[in-house]
Amino acid sequence: MEENAIRFGIIGCAQIARKVSRAIDLSPNSTLYAIGSRSIDKAKKFAIDNDFPDTVKIYGSYGEVLNDPNVDAVYMPLPTSLHVQWGVLAAEKKKHLLIEKPTALSVADLDLILEACRSNGVQFMDGTMWLHHPRTTKMKEMLKNTQLFGPLQMIHSTSTFSETEEFFKDNIRVKPDLDSLGALGDVGWYCIGAILWATDYKLPKTVTALPALSRNQEGVILACGSSFDWGEDAQVATFYCSFLSNVSMDLDLYGSNGSIHVKDYIIPYQENSLAFDLTRRTHFAELQTGWTAKPEKVQVAAELPQEALMIQEFATLVERVKKYAKTPDDKWQEISRKTQLVLDAVSKSIELGFKPVGL
Amino acid sequence: MEENAIRFGIIGCAQIARKVSRAIDLSPNSTLYAIGSRSIDKAKKFAIDNDFPDTVKIYGSYGEVLNDPNVDAVYMPLPTSLHVQWGVLAAEKKKHLLIEKPTALSVADLDLILEACRSNGVQFMDGTMWLHHPRTTKMKEMLKNTQLFGPLQMIHSTSTFSETEEFFKDNIRVKPDLDSLGALGDVGWYCIGAILWATDYKLPKTVTALPALSRNQEGVILACGSSFDWGEDAQVATFYCSFLSNVSMDLDLYGSNGSIHVKDYIIPYQENSLAFDLTRRTHFAELQTGWTAKPEKVQVAAELPQEALMIQEFATLVERVKKYAKTPDDKWQEISRKTQLVLDAVSKSIELGFKPVGL
Repeated sequence: MEENAIRFGIIGCAQIARKVSRAIDLSPNSTLYAIGSRSIDKAKKFAIDNDFPDTVKIYGSYGEVLNDPNVDAVYMPLPTSLHVQWGVLAAEKKKHLLIEKPTALSVADLDLILEACRSNGVQFMDGTMWLHHPRTTKMKEMLKNTQLFGPLQMIHSTSTFSETEEFFKDNIRVKPDLDSLGALGDVGWYCIGAILWATDYKLPKTVTALPALSRNQEGVILACGSSFDWGEDAQVATFYCSFLSNVSMDLDLYGSNGSIHVKDYIIPYQENSLAFDLTRRTHFAELQTGWTAKPEKVQVAAELPQEALMIQEFATLVERVKKYAKTPDDKWQEISRKTQLVLDAVSKSIELGFKPVGL
Repeated sequence: MEENAIRFGIIGCAQIARKVSRAIDLSPNSTLYAIGSRSIDKAKKFAIDNDFPDTVKIYGSYGEVLNDPNVDAVYMPLPTSLHVQWGVLAAEKKKHLLIEKPTALSVADLDLILEACRSNGVQFMDGTMWLHHPRTTKMKEMLKNTQLFGPLQMIHSTSTFSETEEFFKDNIRVKPDLDSLGALGDVGWYCIGAILWATDYKLPKTVTALPALSRNQEGVILACGSSFDWGEDAQVATFYCSFLSNVSMDLDLYGSNGSIHVKDYIIPYQENSLAFDLTRRTHFAELQTGWTAKPEKVQVAAELPQEALMIQEFATLVERVKKYAKTPDDKWQEISRKTQLVLDAVSKSIELGFKPVGL
C-alpha cells in the first residue's frame, strides 16, 4: 500500500460493504481506515468476519467516522432513506463521497447531496461498478464506431434476481421506510444507467412504464419495467427489473450495422473473464438457411475486478482534489443525477397508471 | 420419393419459394408438382435457376396451378394484399393451403381464408418455420417444467435485419399496395408469434406500441415495437422489429427459477446446429463477485432443416385428410389467427399514437 493512499471510512455494515472493503484493499491507491456502525459490536463483528487488519478503526456510530480527520473518503452503503442526512453531513465534514445506488429517493433529495458535495469541494460518485471495467469502455468504443455499428436504434436491458422468503420479510430493499423504490431503485438503477450510458447520457423525451407491475403488501415494487423514447430519433429502449426472476443481466444493443449482446453486464459470470458478443454486417446465407457469420466473442481482460477499478478511479479523482487542489470531476454527479431523474420519471409513470411522462 | 407423397403447387416466384421448394424436396412425404407465375417465362426461369426436375409442371398463371387436379396442396408466397383472393380460391379448389406470413392484412381478411379452408375441408398452415424444429419443442418442454423454470414473467423478442437501398426502392415488403404492414407484418409476425408461443397462445389483455416508429415516405412501417400485458398475471412482453437494424432474432424468456436465451430463433446460425442458452437456479458467488453457474448451452439436433420439418408436418396433416378422411387440424388456424389478431392490435395502437389497445 502506498504511503499516500486515500483513506476510506465505511459507514454501515451492509453485505455490499464486504465486497467494497475487499475492493479498497485490492485497489493500489486506497486503504481501509475505519468502519462505523450504529452498534460497536456489529462493527467489530464485521471487521473480524471480513479479516480487517487491526489497524482499521472501529466506531460505534457513523458520526465518529465522519469526525475522524484521517478519513479522506466515505463509502456509504446505507438504506436509501438515510442518504440525504448522512451524505450531506459527510460532504460538510469534507469527506469525499462514494454512495451506494440508488443515490436517493428522488432527484430533489439527490440534489441536496450533490449541492453539498459541490459547495464543500468533495468528489462524488455512486457505486455502479460495471461502468469502470474496460469491457464497458470497449463496448462504447464499438458503439461509437459508425462504420462498425451504425446508429444505435434499440436498447434492451434487464436486471433481475430471485430471492428467498427471508429477503422478502427482512431485507431493507423491500421496506417502505428504508428503500421505498424497491426493485426499481435497486436493480432498475442498472438498467436505466445502462440505457443512458449507451446513449451518451442523452435523456429520453418520454418514459412509459410497462403495463405490468408487482408490489409487496406494503406497496414496494418487486418487479417493473419501462420503455423510453427520444422523440425524432426513432430510438427506443426497454428494460425490466425484478426481485422475482432468476438472475439476468442482459444488455442488448441493436444498431444498423451491428449489435452487441452481453448477458452479465452488472456482475460478470467470473470476475477474471469478461466478454461480450459482437455481431456486425451480418446477412443470410444462400436460401436464407443460415447466417453469414455467428456473433464474435470479444474478451476484455483487466488487472483488477471491476469494483477495485471503481475504487481506484474514485481514489484517483480524490487525489486530484486532495493533493493538487483540483475541482472535483462533475461527470459522476451528472451520471447519477440523470439516472435518478429517469428513475423518478419511471416511478411517476407507474403512479399514473403507466402513462407517458415527459422529461 | 414415396409414391403417395403430397404433391405441391407453388404460386408465385418469391425468393422464399426457393427455400421452400428445396424443403419440399427434402421432406420425405412431399413432392414438388407444379409452379405457377403470372408470366410463363418467369416460372420457367425460376425452375431452371432452382434445378427443378423436368417433371415439374410450369404454368403461366396461378389459376392453372389451382385447376390442376393432381395438385394436393398449394404453397402461397404472394404479396399479402393478394392472400384473400388466392387463398380463398385455393380452398374452393380443394387445395390444402400453406400460406406465407403475414397471413393477411387484417384478421377480417384472414377469417375469409380460414372460413374457406374450413368449409372446403382443407388443411391450413402459415409458413412460420421455426415452430417446427425440435429446438422449439425442447424450449417449450423446459418452459413448462415449473420446477426448472417457474412461472414465465417476461418475454423479449426481436426480429431485425438491415437491407440494401434496392430493397427499400423495389421490395414488395415496403410497398403500400402489396404489403402495407411493412416490417410489422413481415418480421414483427415472428416476434408476436414467439410471444404467443411462449404463453401457450394466451392472448394479452392489452397491447401498447412502443413510442418509436420509422416509416418510409409512403407510410409503410420500417421499424416498430410493442409491449404486451396479461392483466392480473404481472406477465409482460416486449418486442422490436425492423428492416433498418443489423440481423437479430432474440428470444429471451425470463422465469422465476430459470431463463432461456436464444439469438437465432427464426433462422438458425447454421441449419444443422441449433442451440439455446439455459440458466437455472442461479445465484451469486461469495461476495457477489460472480455467478454460481454460467448459462448452459442446450444443443438440439434434427434430421432435416426446420423448413423441411414444416413441410413434413403439413404434408402429414394433409395425408390425414386426403387418405383417411380426417378433419383438418384446427391448431394451425388458431395459431395464425391469434398472431394476426395481436398484429392488428399493435397496428391500431400505432395508429392511435401508441395508446393501449385492449384485446
